[in-house]
Amino acid sequence: MTKNVEATIEADPKLPIVRITREFDATPEQLFRAHTDPELFLQWNGPDSIDTKIDYWDARTGGSWRYVSSRGDDEFGFHGSFHEVSPTKIVQTFTWEGMPDGVALETLWFEDLGNGRTRLRAQSVVDSIEGRDAWLQSGMEVGVNEGYAKLEKMVADGKL
Amino acid sequence: MTKNVEATIEADPKLPIVRITREFDATPEQLFRAHTDPELFLQWNGPDSIDTKIDYWDARTGGSWRYVSSRGDDEFGFHGSFHEVSPTKIVQTFTWEGMPDGVALETLWFEDLGNGRTRLRAQSVVDSIEGRDAWLQSGMEVGVNEGYAKLEKMVADGKL
Repeated sequence: MTKNVEATIEADPKLPIVRITREFDATPEQLFRAHTDPELFLQWNGPDSIDTKIDYWDARTGGSWRYVSSRGDDEFGFHGSFHEVSPTKIVQTFTWEGMPDGVALETLWFEDLGNGRTRLRAQSVVDSIEGRDAWLQSGMEVGVNEGYAKLEKMVADGKL
Repeated sequence: MTKNVEATIEADPKLPIVRITREFDATPEQLFRAHTDPELFLQWNGPDSIDTKIDYWDARTGGSWRYVSSRGDDEFGFHGSFHEVSPTKIVQTFTWEGMPDGVALETLWFEDLGNGRTRLRAQSVVDSIEGRDAWLQSGMEVGVNEGYAKLEKMVADGKL
């Protein structure tokens, strides 16, 4: 049975926080690899319309990362640092270089649901409600849902 | 003229953010050095009652840091990553290891006021009002004010 699964994307009612939740037919180990191995990550992250190249990537506590996504002649750089990388949780910073003063603190949790299923929860904290809402209104849900669909297909295709 | 200066420590009325402001008789370059050179940092950071040892420290965009403060037999570890290190702004993560799930996103700005004076602004963002208030009620203002008094004395003594 094929399901069309969309991620739940919710703004906190009071705080400058966005929470994203989605379940996968994958183990926590598979989702961890998909988020920490740069060659896997660039295959699924973001909308279908972009290509991603890794600039640098050191997925360990205290490491850092940068990648550049392109659509035709447009390039979008992103970078951050890994505050914590552990098997069930990743904490990192995130900046889109088109708005270099904006920094999000992101936490990802891989929750084992048993039977090869995992709930991915992601929390992004920023420093203003306006910044949060600008991000929500940027069309980010396309990237989130298309990205996770590619990730799910990689699991189904045995690529993780 | 000697002034007894205290830092302004304010919780945002609605958001899980604490903002600290203090002016120094120092240049932005001096305050930057005090926050990025580990041998200088350990001489002023925190309350007078503790000793600090650096575990690792790489103050550049994408670097990371850890130090351990001790008071008698008690040890307190802290660590984080540097999201951005630039002459007038530092963005970093911060965790006290006694509460390892708590992570703050900190931004420091060094604002040149001219005539050798600088306003230091610090913003700490966490993911809940409860976490923010627990930190505010922990006696943190002693560490903030005693630390900044030591920093000001280092400037006056020509150590920066």
